[in-house]
Amino acid sequence: MLNTQLRLARRPSGEAVTGDFHISREAVPDPAPGQVVVRAEYISIDPSVRTHLNAGQSYRSMVGIGEVVDVPVAGEVVASASPLFSTGDKVVGPLGTQEYAVSDGANLTKVDLALAPLPVWLGGLGLTGLTAYFGLLEIGKPQPGQTVVVTAASGAVGSVVGQIARIKGARAVGVCGSEEKCRWLTQELGFDAAVNYRSPDLYRDLKEATPDRIDVVFDNVGGPLLDTILRRLAMRGRIIICGATSQYNTADIYGPKNYMVLATLRARMEGFIIYDYEDRFDAVRREMAQWVKDGRLKLRENIVEGSIVDYPQMLHRLYEGENIGKMMMRIRP
Amino acid sequence: MLNTQLRLARRPSGEAVTGDFHISREAVPDPAPGQVVVRAEYISIDPSVRTHLNAGQSYRSMVGIGEVVDVPVAGEVVASASPLFSTGDKVVGPLGTQEYAVSDGANLTKVDLALAPLPVWLGGLGLTGLTAYFGLLEIGKPQPGQTVVVTAASGAVGSVVGQIARIKGARAVGVCGSEEKCRWLTQELGFDAAVNYRSPDLYRDLKEATPDRIDVVFDNVGGPLLDTILRRLAMRGRIIICGATSQYNTADIYGPKNYMVLATLRARMEGFIIYDYEDRFDAVRREMAQWVKDGRLKLRENIVEGSIVDYPQMLHRLYEGENIGKMMMRIRP
Repeated sequence: MLNTQLRLARRPSGEAVTGDFHISREAVPDPAPGQVVVRAEYISIDPSVRTHLNAGQSYRSMVGIGEVVDVPVAGEVVASASPLFSTGDKVVGPLGTQEYAVSDGANLTKVDLALAPLPVWLGGLGLTGLTAYFGLLEIGKPQPGQTVVVTAASGAVGSVVGQIARIKGARAVGVCGSEEKCRWLTQELGFDAAVNYRSPDLYRDLKEATPDRIDVVFDNVGGPLLDTILRRLAMRGRIIICGATSQYNTADIYGPKNYMVLATLRARMEGFIIYDYEDRFDAVRREMAQWVKDGRLKLRENIVEGSIVDYPQMLHRLYEGENIGKMMMRIRP
Repeated sequence: MLNTQLRLARRPSGEAVTGDFHISREAVPDPAPGQVVVRAEYISIDPSVRTHLNAGQSYRSMVGIGEVVDVPVAGEVVASASPLFSTGDKVVGPLGTQEYAVSDGANLTKVDLALAPLPVWLGGLGLTGLTAYFGLLEIGKPQPGQTVVVTAASGAVGSVVGQIARIKGARAVGVCGSEEKCRWLTQELGFDAAVNYRSPDLYRDLKEATPDRIDVVFDNVGGPLLDTILRRLAMRGRIIICGATSQYNTADIYGPKNYMVLATLRARMEGFIIYDYEDRFDAVRREMAQWVKDGRLKLRENIVEGSIVDYPQMLHRLYEGENIGKMMMRIRP
């Protein structure tokens, strides 16, 4: 059995391109005692992966030169020498850009297909949905009647953030990049309003959509968009810094010039690390699965077919801005 | 009795200059029932006043065209029609850039000269010292053994922040603009270390001064300096946004490019408004006065003589960076 692996060849400058990676092929080893071998079925396509390809800031996900790229994968156990897993089990875990992964099981979550189909475990019930849940509720703490604005609102995390805000009684306003996406947010997902950031007068549109100003910002984008949103912040506003997709592919970072509103509005800008809430993952997955069953939370996956070698192009497509919902690649067997 | 008043004539572009103000002279009215007339003895010279001269952001301190500039003043009641104040009482309050002010007393604090001399009530026991106290302890919450870095450390607020950090058992590191100021911080005020931001290798110096990274940043400066400090932030670091002196005189604001460390370090950047703690001002003033008596808190005033018309030049001197401690102008009678 041959394993095809995509490895980082050099640190990208700007957007990551195919030439920044190389392909290696090696035999899949038999699992040692306690280990399992997983065959990848779906690989998560996340904008944040770009930051892990940079040198510099210490961060547990930084990818070394020559290493496979550390991304979430959903797949099937094809060989097991572990008492905890059987051949045929479906699992998710950070198994990286390779067709087969050997794991001691510590980083694997066994998936209950009765709760949701396998792709959902990479999306709404995966780290994506958990990021939305814990970031919004633990850091943003929206109160009923308050206004939540989320950027990249039609993306994997953003679309879940807005729906959870509504479930908790807050007003959800999404910012995204097309009229089609705006319609999806308001007509399909029940957002209270949506704003197209390509509008000729973004601030005016945002102001109309947030008559009582903004109590909670869930930011995935950064850049000038975040600055515009900061102008509409309410007293004691909370800005959850989840990502900065507008800044991932550039070395000339745009810092939020309006950060001094933190001082004038006694506001707060804060980040979080999802693994701090690991002991609650199971319970929250069950809670969110129930919301899905009740029709209160709608999840959408954008599944594209490909093979491991296509991963860089998939990342490019994500950055092109056409994606709606959770993007992932189904690995052609 | 003639009152000389400095009023805003136009919104400054860049640094405020004498031509941005005009002088008016009018008779001091007799106090109406309930009112007092206060003669200014000391006027506070604060960098933050520059932000109140801009249009735009709603903020309770914004100065209108034609208005006196809203700054803290310490002075003496020279006429009283209020049962709460007697002629000869010393008071502090936001009486503005004028020799005499009429007040209904609501914004005045009667001063206890047994606790501290009058200038101290504009500095360490005034809003300046209270800003240091509440910002550091309520927002930064330094724990014993943690590292606190304060910028503009030899200034009015910064010099108090570092000393309170030490009183609470934290390690205090000051960032300032000269070797003389560094020596004052470490040798006179007991800071654990001081760093000159003009150093050819500021990051290296900061790293040496903060071997365990930085738990709390009390920032008065902003700009590239804040970015350098963010590179040394510890997990769960707290950045108190108090001011941004480096950005007050420019329209081309520098936003903190390294703000994404908030996400990777689960850190927080937060502002505060001192008036939220108004009901504790008296108690904290007594606590701080006791620290001064015990020799644990050293306060320094930089008192320059002048008249109301000199106010713009005084502000310029403050920005030149030669000031140490709390700068104020003693009004020549």
